[in-house]
Amino acid sequence: MAATDSTSAQFPAESAADGSWKRQNSAFRHTVEAGGEFPPEAGRYHLWVSLACPWAHRTIIVRKLKGLEHALSLSVVDPIRDERGWRFTTGAGHGPDPIRDFKFLSEAYRATDPDFDARVTVPTLWDRESGQIVNNESAELIVMLDGAFAELAEEPGPQLYPEDLREAIDEVNDFVYDHINDGVYKCGFAASQGAYDRAYAHLFDGLDELERRLAGQRYLAGDRLTLADVRAFTTLVRFDAVYHGHFKCNRQRLADFEHLWAYARDLYQTPGFGDTVDFDHIKRHYYVTHGQLNPSGIVPQGPLLDWGAPHGREDLAPAGPFGE
Amino acid sequence: MAATDSTSAQFPAESAADGSWKRQNSAFRHTVEAGGEFPPEAGRYHLWVSLACPWAHRTIIVRKLKGLEHALSLSVVDPIRDERGWRFTTGAGHGPDPIRDFKFLSEAYRATDPDFDARVTVPTLWDRESGQIVNNESAELIVMLDGAFAELAEEPGPQLYPEDLREAIDEVNDFVYDHINDGVYKCGFAASQGAYDRAYAHLFDGLDELERRLAGQRYLAGDRLTLADVRAFTTLVRFDAVYHGHFKCNRQRLADFEHLWAYARDLYQTPGFGDTVDFDHIKRHYYVTHGQLNPSGIVPQGPLLDWGAPHGREDLAPAGPFGE
Repeated sequence: MAATDSTSAQFPAESAADGSWKRQNSAFRHTVEAGGEFPPEAGRYHLWVSLACPWAHRTIIVRKLKGLEHALSLSVVDPIRDERGWRFTTGAGHGPDPIRDFKFLSEAYRATDPDFDARVTVPTLWDRESGQIVNNESAELIVMLDGAFAELAEEPGPQLYPEDLREAIDEVNDFVYDHINDGVYKCGFAASQGAYDRAYAHLFDGLDELERRLAGQRYLAGDRLTLADVRAFTTLVRFDAVYHGHFKCNRQRLADFEHLWAYARDLYQTPGFGDTVDFDHIKRHYYVTHGQLNPSGIVPQGPLLDWGAPHGREDLAPAGPFGE
Repeated sequence: MAATDSTSAQFPAESAADGSWKRQNSAFRHTVEAGGEFPPEAGRYHLWVSLACPWAHRTIIVRKLKGLEHALSLSVVDPIRDERGWRFTTGAGHGPDPIRDFKFLSEAYRATDPDFDARVTVPTLWDRESGQIVNNESAELIVMLDGAFAELAEEPGPQLYPEDLREAIDEVNDFVYDHINDGVYKCGFAASQGAYDRAYAHLFDGLDELERRLAGQRYLAGDRLTLADVRAFTTLVRFDAVYHGHFKCNRQRLADFEHLWAYARDLYQTPGFGDTVDFDHIKRHYYVTHGQLNPSGIVPQGPLLDWGAPHGREDLAPAGPFGE
């Protein structure tokens, strides 16, 4: 997979011959599970996240919804990344590495696999006991947080991936990943006009479909909030702030979709969602890190949006987000 | 005037030490006037324009409003500019140079002044008789088109700079130039975060002021359409298509201002305005030409806006745009 014009790709190794974006697979895929090599234990694991990254943001939300803040430590990397990858520095909302005083997250990757040479990503779950990365795939981590980790909660949180809804959740997740979560990156990291044009159509087809679905139901899998909503939210909350301009996802803004915008505000106003959003980290990360997209590194001041405006969706699921 | 970091400025020669954008002055400032060195004569002058450029667009609109299409020839440059400047090629909406088969507009500049070495700009008014550029300052050209050229019209057009309104027009022009016409460029070509932040505040202060004024009056100088509206329009019509994303003018869109957006649509729907707008040239020019702002050269497909939607401003000036 080599880009035809690698100088115009932000990550040439993840650009196909036609200029389309092909995200690498996550490298570490162990499972935290009772009776396994990595059993759930309070204080044993650590989560490295970026407040900027939509994939890491999934784990921040689920950790909070599940009441795992005491059992699972978490620290935040510098939102600005250079060619050396995510790093640990001290600034507004981020700090040094509490595990081994690493300077770069890549040190954790190489401590786990000395031959690792792909892109270093967040979220990353570290095992203090064996001194290695357990898993760096957000889709799997949030299932573990909802499942194996749940017993460590001080107070039990809501089930976000309940058995009876798994089929529906998996189906919407596949759709949302392809069209939206990765869809915005397919637009932004397209290295040819054709790849961008196709990605743009695919993204807005997906948003149009969600707009139709959310007209009649409060959450993506029905009348309760699930992992499907967490996964959609972390992309939607970044849409107007970065994807609309920086990634050229500009047919319209999220704020121009009646139901999607109300849905996103509904989630934002749910504890665990809006209180985990850091627009400063989000905007600085994207605009400063992608030299190929924004060489000046200047960060836009806009947009000005009212995430606290009433969403009016309570009647679609009067029992509340978790059915209580 | 040298930029602190000239690599991040699109036009280093027009970037001040603090990173702020300082537009060069137009070089050729002769006047077409009866009895002068350059008297108004049908067929004598030629106008080179870009359909992308807001400064050139002023002259296209006024030439049309004044009925000068037969008396004053016009041709269109390629919307894509490289380090050699505006050029003549054949494509959708543009063609070869009809005057001397120039390949680049810079040839006309050097034919007029062999030492010319600043940025070559449009609009450019050429005198076939003496073989030189008469004037390349849009603010002056549109006054000449409204004045000295008016007698060449097949049918007399409306007065766009009437004596009794000149003071009011000049005042609003100064404000709109500083805050808006050049204001969007101060945002987009800022070469430092501080210069951008100041430019952003200045721009939206200006738009907020126009929003207030236009709540109660149909046009910028009162109840008739004047040059002030032409000058405002050519920036406003490009706002959501390019300045909002490409120049980071993103506190909100034009479409989010109640009165400004209705005002812009009112003008768009007036003959001479919307029919001279070419969004293809506009978007391709900005996104492909500014390598420092958009290295990939990928042109966004959005935004999708309804310029034809009813504007509801007729009652503010029931006699119509020109008081008939």
